[in-house]
Amino acid sequence: MKSVGINGYGTIGKRVADAVSAQDDMKIVGVTKRSPDFEARMAVENGYDLYISVPERESSFEEAGIKVTGTADELLEKLDIVVDCTPEGIGAKNKEGTYEKMGLKAIFQGGEKHDQIGLSFNSFSNYNDVIGKDYARVVSCNTTGLCRTLNPINDLCGIKKVRAVMVRRGADPGQVKKGPINAIVPNPPTVPSHHGPDVQTVMYDLNITTMALLVPTTLMHQHNLMVELESSVSVDDIKEKLNETPRVLLLKAGEGLTSTAGFMEYAKDLGRSRNDLFEIGVWEESLNIVDGELYYMQAIHQESDVVPENVDAIRAMLEMENDPSKSIQKTNKAMGIL
Amino acid sequence: MKSVGINGYGTIGKRVADAVSAQDDMKIVGVTKRSPDFEARMAVENGYDLYISVPERESSFEEAGIKVTGTADELLEKLDIVVDCTPEGIGAKNKEGTYEKMGLKAIFQGGEKHDQIGLSFNSFSNYNDVIGKDYARVVSCNTTGLCRTLNPINDLCGIKKVRAVMVRRGADPGQVKKGPINAIVPNPPTVPSHHGPDVQTVMYDLNITTMALLVPTTLMHQHNLMVELESSVSVDDIKEKLNETPRVLLLKAGEGLTSTAGFMEYAKDLGRSRNDLFEIGVWEESLNIVDGELYYMQAIHQESDVVPENVDAIRAMLEMENDPSKSIQKTNKAMGIL
Repeated sequence: MKSVGINGYGTIGKRVADAVSAQDDMKIVGVTKRSPDFEARMAVENGYDLYISVPERESSFEEAGIKVTGTADELLEKLDIVVDCTPEGIGAKNKEGTYEKMGLKAIFQGGEKHDQIGLSFNSFSNYNDVIGKDYARVVSCNTTGLCRTLNPINDLCGIKKVRAVMVRRGADPGQVKKGPINAIVPNPPTVPSHHGPDVQTVMYDLNITTMALLVPTTLMHQHNLMVELESSVSVDDIKEKLNETPRVLLLKAGEGLTSTAGFMEYAKDLGRSRNDLFEIGVWEESLNIVDGELYYMQAIHQESDVVPENVDAIRAMLEMENDPSKSIQKTNKAMGIL
Repeated sequence: MKSVGINGYGTIGKRVADAVSAQDDMKIVGVTKRSPDFEARMAVENGYDLYISVPERESSFEEAGIKVTGTADELLEKLDIVVDCTPEGIGAKNKEGTYEKMGLKAIFQGGEKHDQIGLSFNSFSNYNDVIGKDYARVVSCNTTGLCRTLNPINDLCGIKKVRAVMVRRGADPGQVKKGPINAIVPNPPTVPSHHGPDVQTVMYDLNITTMALLVPTTLMHQHNLMVELESSVSVDDIKEKLNETPRVLLLKAGEGLTSTAGFMEYAKDLGRSRNDLFEIGVWEESLNIVDGELYYMQAIHQESDVVPENVDAIRAMLEMENDPSKSIQKTNKAMGIL
């Protein structure tokens, strides 16, 4: 039973904590918070030992009636590995300032720069390259979404070139200080966007160009893919391949799943914790091949799709499982992933 | 001075009425309305004679204190050409049921089906093919937007293939019964969308595939273009060509025009009537050529970009001007188009 800690119990951290707790070969020793907010209170209510990142603030947690077990440094001493879910840019500082000095293995999130962590991870793309490593970054939600469907397609028939236009949610549902409210924002306004190179940190030889924008929605990202194929296959071949791929769901607009809102409603009806959709949803009707080029549309739940990848990364880095498909299967079963 | 009437004084109709009125070679004889709403009242206040489509409703206009000049049929008798701006599908019925029987020339909007009208129109693509014709359809706002930039690029260096992902506004600013409010909607959920074939109704030989979706915004559509070029040019060549193309504006995100909302703010500051942006706005920073493929992002003001095309279509169909560039120049000057 490996000991895991979560540094930063926020949007991703709280989900990874629950996903780790659901496994039978690892456990959460504790989680960290900076402020005595509702998430800190609920961490304790959910049974997690709470450690604080800023020791001077202990009294504010006491005043709020939130039980503190110790400081973040005390937590880190007890771990086999830490999953760093701190805000963008903080993870890289923690690596240099803390984890490396302690000799503690650490997993980072997609907000960190690949170059600063040195190694990126996706369960389906490069699990084997991360086995036993000390530091790795789980690629962002968008990149994870691209890898999830491009990997099996590449395995099936090879990919010459990918073009993808990524229509991203402006903010997460709880974020009230971000926009846009009523605009479409090229983000970045330059082409190609950074997402293509980010995919290449785990699918090393893929020829991919991406464009990205932000729109006024909070639910999910949506991707529009155009994939030139190496060898000839049918749409049915692609459907069959995606159907047998873990963490990918073919969903039918014809059954009322006409939008990202429909996908989220589906996740609610599945009884998922926090209404999470860990799988990438592909609109079945959108799959089409014209002149050797595959077209499809998919949706990505930005708050949760990377969560099972974090669990797999723990197994790879702690050498608990050297077969990616076995880790994926184990993670999925424990989390109830379809 | 040619006599023009507007059948359907709504979003497009009221703008075409003002654009025709601004020209020195044509005039508005009258406009039609079905209901005594604020647009009917303002038509009269703006000096247009109002004709009613449903004669039985005359008393309701009287009760509302809105002056009626006559019936729609009476208006049509006085015209050299009618611009039909009625809701989607009504135009084709009017063509068969009314205009053809009267022998009245008519222009339709992009909501009508190409096959039912028989001929489509874009000022830059096929003006010459519409000269003297009785019926033509100005292609939709999205198709007009694609033609505006693809035509000059095709002229400059030839186009092998176009891929476009079109992120469309969910509703116009005044429409309160349409969505989505918080979702991304593949629309259609099948690929390719109908926009590619629609472009081919005016750019006959263009190889183009399109994907389309709806997002929760009311201001403008946004297009993401990937254009494989026939011959080698530089980004500066493309910029120069687009800069000299009428009804296309290169706008800089770096100058604060970071979104469709920025473009609309710019139109306001230009002092445009109804804040219209008749030009297609291309984000200058998005222009890039990688491996012989041109990438760019553009924004389309769905309420107004087709308006100058309607004016040019009048000149072509009434054989008032056989040189497209002269009509475009004349229309633009009268409308204050950049």
